[in-house]
Amino acid sequence: MAKPTILVVSGHAADFCSRSGGTIAKYVREGCRVQIIALTFGERGESAYYWAQNPNSTIEAAKVQRKKEALAAAEVLGAEIDFCDYDDHPLIMTGERITELAMRIQDIRPDIVLTHWHHDPVNVDHGVTSSVVIRALSCASVPGLQPGVKPHPLPDVFFFESSVPHTEFNEFRIDTYVDITETQAIKLEALSKFTSQPFLAEWYTKYAEHRGHQAGNWTQRTIKYAEGFKRYTPYVGSFFPLSER
Amino acid sequence: MAKPTILVVSGHAADFCSRSGGTIAKYVREGCRVQIIALTFGERGESAYYWAQNPNSTIEAAKVQRKKEALAAAEVLGAEIDFCDYDDHPLIMTGERITELAMRIQDIRPDIVLTHWHHDPVNVDHGVTSSVVIRALSCASVPGLQPGVKPHPLPDVFFFESSVPHTEFNEFRIDTYVDITETQAIKLEALSKFTSQPFLAEWYTKYAEHRGHQAGNWTQRTIKYAEGFKRYTPYVGSFFPLSER
Amino acid sequence: MAKPTILVVSGHAADFCSRSGGTIAKYVREGCRVQIIALTFGERGESAYYWAQNPNSTIEAAKVQRKKEALAAAEVLGAEIDFCDYDDHPLIMTGERITELAMRIQDIRPDIVLTHWHHDPVNVDHGVTSSVVIRALSCASVPGLQPGVKPHPLPDVFFFESSVPHTEFNEFRIDTYVDITETQAIKLEALSKFTSQPFLAEWYTKYAEHRGHQAGNWTQRTIKYAEGFKRYTPYVGSFFPLSER
Amino acid sequence: MAKPTILVVSGHAADFCSRSGGTIAKYVREGCRVQIIALTFGERGESAYYWAQNPNSTIEAAKVQRKKEALAAAEVLGAEIDFCDYDDHPLIMTGERITELAMRIQDIRPDIVLTHWHHDPVNVDHGVTSSVVIRALSCASVPGLQPGVKPHPLPDVFFFESSVPHTEFNEFRIDTYVDITETQAIKLEALSKFTSQPFLAEWYTKYAEHRGHQAGNWTQRTIKYAEGFKRYTPYVGSFFPLSER
Amino acid sequence: MAKPTILVVSGHAADFCSRSGGTIAKYVREGCRVQIIALTFGERGESAYYWAQNPNSTIEAAKVQRKKEALAAAEVLGAEIDFCDYDDHPLIMTGERITELAMRIQDIRPDIVLTHWHHDPVNVDHGVTSSVVIRALSCASVPGLQPGVKPHPLPDVFFFESSVPHTEFNEFRIDTYVDITETQAIKLEALSKFTSQPFLAEWYTKYAEHRGHQAGNWTQRTIKYAEGFKRYTPYVGSFFPLSER
Amino acid sequence: MAKPTILVVSGHAADFCSRSGGTIAKYVREGCRVQIIALTFGERGESAYYWAQNPNSTIEAAKVQRKKEALAAAEVLGAEIDFCDYDDHPLIMTGERITELAMRIQDIRPDIVLTHWHHDPVNVDHGVTSSVVIRALSCASVPGLQPGVKPHPLPDVFFFESSVPHTEFNEFRIDTYVDITETQAIKLEALSKFTSQPFLAEWYTKYAEHRGHQAGNWTQRTIKYAEGFKRYTPYVGSFFPLSER
Repeated sequence: MAKPTILVVSGHAADFCSRSGGTIAKYVREGCRVQIIALTFGERGESAYYWAQNPNSTIEAAKVQRKKEALAAAEVLGAEIDFCDYDDHPLIMTGERITELAMRIQDIRPDIVLTHWHHDPVNVDHGVTSSVVIRALSCASVPGLQPGVKPHPLPDVFFFESSVPHTEFNEFRIDTYVDITETQAIKLEALSKFTSQPFLAEWYTKYAEHRGHQAGNWTQRTIKYAEGFKRYTPYVGSFFPLSER
Repeated sequence: MAKPTILVVSGHAADFCSRSGGTIAKYVREGCRVQIIALTFGERGESAYYWAQNPNSTIEAAKVQRKKEALAAAEVLGAEIDFCDYDDHPLIMTGERITELAMRIQDIRPDIVLTHWHHDPVNVDHGVTSSVVIRALSCASVPGLQPGVKPHPLPDVFFFESSVPHTEFNEFRIDTYVDITETQAIKLEALSKFTSQPFLAEWYTKYAEHRGHQAGNWTQRTIKYAEGFKRYTPYVGSFFPLSER
Repeated sequence: MAKPTILVVSGHAADFCSRSGGTIAKYVREGCRVQIIALTFGERGESAYYWAQNPNSTIEAAKVQRKKEALAAAEVLGAEIDFCDYDDHPLIMTGERITELAMRIQDIRPDIVLTHWHHDPVNVDHGVTSSVVIRALSCASVPGLQPGVKPHPLPDVFFFESSVPHTEFNEFRIDTYVDITETQAIKLEALSKFTSQPFLAEWYTKYAEHRGHQAGNWTQRTIKYAEGFKRYTPYVGSFFPLSER
Repeated sequence: MAKPTILVVSGHAADFCSRSGGTIAKYVREGCRVQIIALTFGERGESAYYWAQNPNSTIEAAKVQRKKEALAAAEVLGAEIDFCDYDDHPLIMTGERITELAMRIQDIRPDIVLTHWHHDPVNVDHGVTSSVVIRALSCASVPGLQPGVKPHPLPDVFFFESSVPHTEFNEFRIDTYVDITETQAIKLEALSKFTSQPFLAEWYTKYAEHRGHQAGNWTQRTIKYAEGFKRYTPYVGSFFPLSER
Repeated sequence: MAKPTILVVSGHAADFCSRSGGTIAKYVREGCRVQIIALTFGERGESAYYWAQNPNSTIEAAKVQRKKEALAAAEVLGAEIDFCDYDDHPLIMTGERITELAMRIQDIRPDIVLTHWHHDPVNVDHGVTSSVVIRALSCASVPGLQPGVKPHPLPDVFFFESSVPHTEFNEFRIDTYVDITETQAIKLEALSKFTSQPFLAEWYTKYAEHRGHQAGNWTQRTIKYAEGFKRYTPYVGSFFPLSER
Repeated sequence: MAKPTILVVSGHAADFCSRSGGTIAKYVREGCRVQIIALTFGERGESAYYWAQNPNSTIEAAKVQRKKEALAAAEVLGAEIDFCDYDDHPLIMTGERITELAMRIQDIRPDIVLTHWHHDPVNVDHGVTSSVVIRALSCASVPGLQPGVKPHPLPDVFFFESSVPHTEFNEFRIDTYVDITETQAIKLEALSKFTSQPFLAEWYTKYAEHRGHQAGNWTQRTIKYAEGFKRYTPYVGSFFPLSER
């Protein structure tokens, strides 16, 4: 089988990295193409430290800073990143924006899509991103979206971690753990690029340890760091996918 | 009691027929008025064969073709059909469109409303249609929508089949089966009018047999073809509605 | 169609009457056979007034009193009643008891079964009754329960009201209302026989009014008294069962 | 601790009063500030009597009347009220409106937020209000909504009663009862100001009795009138909050 | 990795074959050990044809016949089978029986466990089997069940198809499809051994086609026959398990 | 109000301490009576280290050891503890045992009951304990359980943490956090008494930090250690219970 192409749709500029940076780095190491689409720069919601340091700055300046950070982080991971600049808090997705996203999907033709878990009342943009990705995938799968362009059937879709630390409140229920022990260092380096959110490394290391603890408990072996996901589309294959023990 | 009036709200041009064509034909035979409203022509999502045959066609031409097909199918069933031409994939319902639909409901004054099941991630337009019909019914039931026009209280609402074959994925849970054995032939004739979707007859015959098998299993008799629905509004009556055995 | 036979399985001695007495009386008026099975006398849980009046009484004496009351109530309604005497609070259903109940079902051959809603943490016996009725119906539907006795396929099953006034806490969700205005007086007379529970008439009149209010609101007409039920098995028929407006 | 500030977001002009008027009056008596925001005047959906009396009136005239009523009711309760005039049935919330509401939240800085339960198919505006309040709270909690303005973290949020009498249909599940016996008279006086909805006093007295009955049943004491709520955000404290018995 | 050992726990004599016979045969072909445990012979519930042909037979004679059939079917599949003879309809699992099952698990040490979906009101024994397998796995994972015997941590657990044709009623939601096209012929031969249930081949061929249709629809390729499962324990691995396209 | 009495029902010997030890110590400090009932000694499931050290020991000897540990831990917390010795893995609750527990409840007359969350497939005894406590509370609330003994109405019930680290898998959703920073040291000392489970201190410190992090995030202040609970019975009071900020 050809190496899979991965599309990661991130509501804000840093979500792709904090939730799935370790997994992205693993696929990149395998030689896969990973394309990230950030719907917004997270200029309002994700930039606490930036605003603390620059209380008189502007939204536009914040966007410039966030873009710089996200580009650097993606580069560390070895992934490409595009920005939609749709404005966050609240992220509003119109029909035109859904269509744009659907056309991007038809262009990228991903085998795997990663995006947010759909329920996240603490950070509603995340849930909006999730449902709009499903909607865009649905649109990308039909023949008349772009007559003459081949429709792209639904790939394997996985949802990543909702707003930490409120994962139980958000009813996030993991059924797939990826062991990221070997790429955790790369992920940390990528996270360090988000200077507007200096706490990311600590928080998400704690979460990666927590998920590693859970994953290791299921398989009775030591897993230092893991990322947790919820599979959305069914698995179809010749045999059951068995956990590595 | 007077013969009930039935309103069927269909997200795309063919949904009404594939999901409830047999039931529609039965009510028409009883002398009931059946009014169909198609929110879109399904020009993008439902016209796979059309686009395969006419790769250089336009959306407008596809709409013309779809309208012709849907009109022919409605005629076979004996129902009227109106088209909103709202564009599909994605179907976007604005406040104005909801109000238009609510006013149509106040005009038609249906005793029964049929529409899509609300959860259909494979075809998100279906879920949008479902929730917008509930919303329009809510608006149609209030006195100030059109001052001077009598509000129309919520009728008996039933949801029809979600995207086949993924009915379990869509969590569609039938609680009402209508035996369509006697009108299955008419339904097939109506389905044959959708030349842009030549597979409809085969797929929905299979599903009608499947639903018939289930319905027959519950009642311990042979039911060759059935359509399955989920009741939404409560039943109110003098006695329990009992299955026919 | 022949007149339907109704089986009502009541966890305690009075449940059948307080939750479905009005409906029972209606079916009896139509000439139907209604058979009640009370799994316990409710001697511990349902006899507050009895114990207040007879603090030094015994469980056996309480059972005698409860049986007298339930017999009188059933007679008022025009239904037959049998008692299993399984002891309440906690009601424990063994394999033998499930089999006994299944054999009774094969003997009665009901077209309609009424029993408790399955979730009732305030009165757990109710939930036990509900799940055990489903289990006994499952057993009664198989050929080898009593070789030589015809199995009885699942009839139309409806759950009645859970512990009042905590119906929302118990997640009871009505989808079927029966208008009992014409038999409310008979129901009240039957309830008056339960002298160990003198508050029944007041509570359940209030609830019948509440349910009537809801039922009337759905159908835009005045329904003075109603009983609310949740349908369990699907409806199968030639047309939709429509609310009476 | 300083006295808490309460924000009540009401979909229509009278919702705040019918669902939480007794609770509002209690907090006002304690010296708390209670600020109400009515997203619409309920000119279409809530003004049945007005339209019956003034069949030839206009939407604008209805709004004037509704505003007068709501102002009078708020004054009786001792609360302030602002109106957004967003039009009801259907209430449509754009990104701009969400941002406005979020800015109001940052300005008011509430310790408690009361709004609608999120599921209310009979009156969809209610559910829209609920989800939009959560979204606005999410936006109000981020640093970049209004650079230079302190973000407001999520307060304690409670949902009030959905459309009566269909609370079970709407899956409203109360976990918090407030005893309003002492302010029921004030609430009734406030409700009497809504002359376009003369039935409010009777309906909501019945519901306050019903909720009082439930609350009293849980605590084994007489509670004449209560209002029921569903807590949304978790409780955090030094000990468990214990019911008053 | 060593070849996985598979344990299949079947409520009745034929369940293992009708729901997972194709998958079993595939694992056997790969050289895996597959051990089946049948809790009962299904002598009451699964032997309709037997009782029709032998109306005067006994439960014991039915068991003998069923055992013969199940042994023959297991042999065709290439799997071992043991019988607990616990009596069906109703299947009652005591503490002793749970412990016995847990000890068998510690003995077999499976990497994969297949058993029933947990919700199956039409055939309650199935749900009992499901929950009791989870309970036995929990017991088998602790050190003191059999001091001196190594506990067996939870393996990868998958639930197979609930009672057909009522899979939507039973809320069975597949997330894992196994393509059994290459072993469908073996499965059919195995099913033919159950002469007490001559309809199995037809019903389960239809279901395997239905599941194949769904699986093929997800992966856009032709899958003639498939079996559907619901994963229970999370997947833990180095990468996502991707569908075969 | 008199100081509340707390009853903690623990499936195994150490559950009360690991999940609610900090909260227990706080109530004890306030002068409250805290009574623990341990249904089993956890001799099979909770004693991994004991069995590793004493591979040739017996169940009886393990029980003696576990009892010693639990007594010492309860003493550190300042609580009383009783043991039912019902045997764990699997814990089987008969009607007699439920009645015994109900009689103990009528004797203790708790204002607060703490027990397990109801869903815990990794450790099914926990869920059994939870449901049986609800059942015993239901039995304890009726007049005829022990004629002459005053029934005890349902107190405020809270569920504590399910099997860590699988709290999301177990769908445990916290709505009440108790800050245990001031008693964490006592809890640790108590946990140290469970020498058969030497890992408890580390695991539950990590969890108390995690819950503290969540609780602090909701209230925007530093909470070093917390325990998380799910309220079961509704809160009834004069005002809303507000989080301490």
